[in-house]
Amino acid sequence: MNDLSIPVFADIENAYERIKPYVHRTPVMSSSLLNEFFDAQLYFKCENFQKVGAFKFRGATNAVNLLSQEELARGLVTHSSGNHAAALSLAARNRGAKAFIVMPSNSPGVKKLAVAGYGADIRYCEPNLKAREDTAGEIIRETGATFIHAYDNFNVIAGQGTAGYELLNDYTDLEMIVGPVGGGGLMSGTAIAVKGLKPGIKVIGAEPLGADDAYRSIKSGKYISHHKPNTIADGLLTTLSKRTFAILSENLDDIFTVTEKSIINCMRLVWERMKIIIEPSSAVSLAVVEENPDVFRGKKVGIILSGGNIDLGNIPF
Amino acid sequence: MNDLSIPVFADIENAYERIKPYVHRTPVMSSSLLNEFFDAQLYFKCENFQKVGAFKFRGATNAVNLLSQEELARGLVTHSSGNHAAALSLAARNRGAKAFIVMPSNSPGVKKLAVAGYGADIRYCEPNLKAREDTAGEIIRETGATFIHAYDNFNVIAGQGTAGYELLNDYTDLEMIVGPVGGGGLMSGTAIAVKGLKPGIKVIGAEPLGADDAYRSIKSGKYISHHKPNTIADGLLTTLSKRTFAILSENLDDIFTVTEKSIINCMRLVWERMKIIIEPSSAVSLAVVEENPDVFRGKKVGIILSGGNIDLGNIPF
Repeated sequence: MNDLSIPVFADIENAYERIKPYVHRTPVMSSSLLNEFFDAQLYFKCENFQKVGAFKFRGATNAVNLLSQEELARGLVTHSSGNHAAALSLAARNRGAKAFIVMPSNSPGVKKLAVAGYGADIRYCEPNLKAREDTAGEIIRETGATFIHAYDNFNVIAGQGTAGYELLNDYTDLEMIVGPVGGGGLMSGTAIAVKGLKPGIKVIGAEPLGADDAYRSIKSGKYISHHKPNTIADGLLTTLSKRTFAILSENLDDIFTVTEKSIINCMRLVWERMKIIIEPSSAVSLAVVEENPDVFRGKKVGIILSGGNIDLGNIPF
Repeated sequence: MNDLSIPVFADIENAYERIKPYVHRTPVMSSSLLNEFFDAQLYFKCENFQKVGAFKFRGATNAVNLLSQEELARGLVTHSSGNHAAALSLAARNRGAKAFIVMPSNSPGVKKLAVAGYGADIRYCEPNLKAREDTAGEIIRETGATFIHAYDNFNVIAGQGTAGYELLNDYTDLEMIVGPVGGGGLMSGTAIAVKGLKPGIKVIGAEPLGADDAYRSIKSGKYISHHKPNTIADGLLTTLSKRTFAILSENLDDIFTVTEKSIINCMRLVWERMKIIIEPSSAVSLAVVEENPDVFRGKKVGIILSGGNIDLGNIPF
């Protein structure tokens, strides 16, 4: 398949069947208190309860499980310091394959530990994109390992779509789905999945104002590849790829940006009222609901809580 | 019924049917990571997801729903600054009854707000037991309101037993159930419920070393009514009543005390690994598993997570 190929609904269905034995079918939670507060019916898809604590395990598992025995034997490689690194490490281990994870040398110790805990081979590099790509390139030349990008990958996108697929199958009368946009893998897969199931459903992207490359790209119709993000939502620092830009431009019904204050406020609301731990990136969707009450009033809204990995020694409230 | 009457299994079954329309059937969660860590199969009954964020809503709902229309019209009263106060307030509101809550004037603002949010009439008093009892006595004389004790109450105990009843019905092959002991209402109801369902099951109490009145009462066979508790587990500061002492002496297979360090460590483990918020009192049971590996190794263990109400501005790690 070529580099800009785009999954269709059947790819999501196939991914769902393929990864089912490996992933949790995460619960969908509601809170009558939050429903009252936001004057909407909110259904939270709890990917914070997914293995490795984030939806990323879906895409990584789908991509790894499509590799041949020969490819698995040569191993996998990615550069990431976040949830994709942990997800790929566990997905590889589940198939007996080796994962090489290129991480910036200044990555937090807790992230290094998590990835090492899944048995990955960590290779450190300078904290910039060129060093990351160069180091990954060296590993590929040495080992023949297969590179699995965190979001610019057909099979990763198809895998990420299975969260929304499960959510809408559990709650077929949802009218809207909101989820966060970083590199765009989650919402690309989500849009393909839920519009395949229910063409009339609205799919809405949520982005921090401090990392609004997708908002600007989509609203202007012109792909923006560089930005200097500044947000607490550390899972949403990446920019769209040309592929996710194409998918989201076609399939998102709207995209909203939200303030840091609103992200932190909504994160605290979920912790306090729902008694679950979500990372800041997960709170961005609820912040969109908070900042745009007219859009969501009285609606049945699915919200994808993307993950729950946060340093408990560094809580922003 | 007299003051020391004790529920039997049929009372738990009746309570279960009575409160079913009002309470959440809370989920039971597992973590393969924690199972590996503790070398046991742990099934967590998530009463942190119960209404008002704690199991207390079960007992309060059962007690309130057994009152006559005349009693409801006169209102309810209790003295508590914790989860029982919120639970009774909501249980009363659900039946259109007034709840008078006697709270020490130095109660945290967040607890006052929670209780007021459920529409209760808060009466402040000096922060000591005599002032609390006197103030409640005055309200009863003025209004004829019915006093509902937080744990020394037949119907409250029967209601608390429904959490363990659900847990063992969901996972019939459990070999042990562990839960925290404060006033003893939860574990009294739990023991009656689960031994009624499965006589061979072991029921184990968990208590902070800094509030070990139940441990000392049960181990010595002599009821201790006074102690000076000092623990982070603020739900477990109370002493047993003569009734809960009698029930637990008869029905607990063992009781263990745990250190503050272990409580905080286990609380953090659950937050980090299970991505759910539990209050310190909930972590005491897991701390018992941590401190006594030989007792639990290889066993299927039910653990009651009693609640999730904690001031997020004051986390002990």
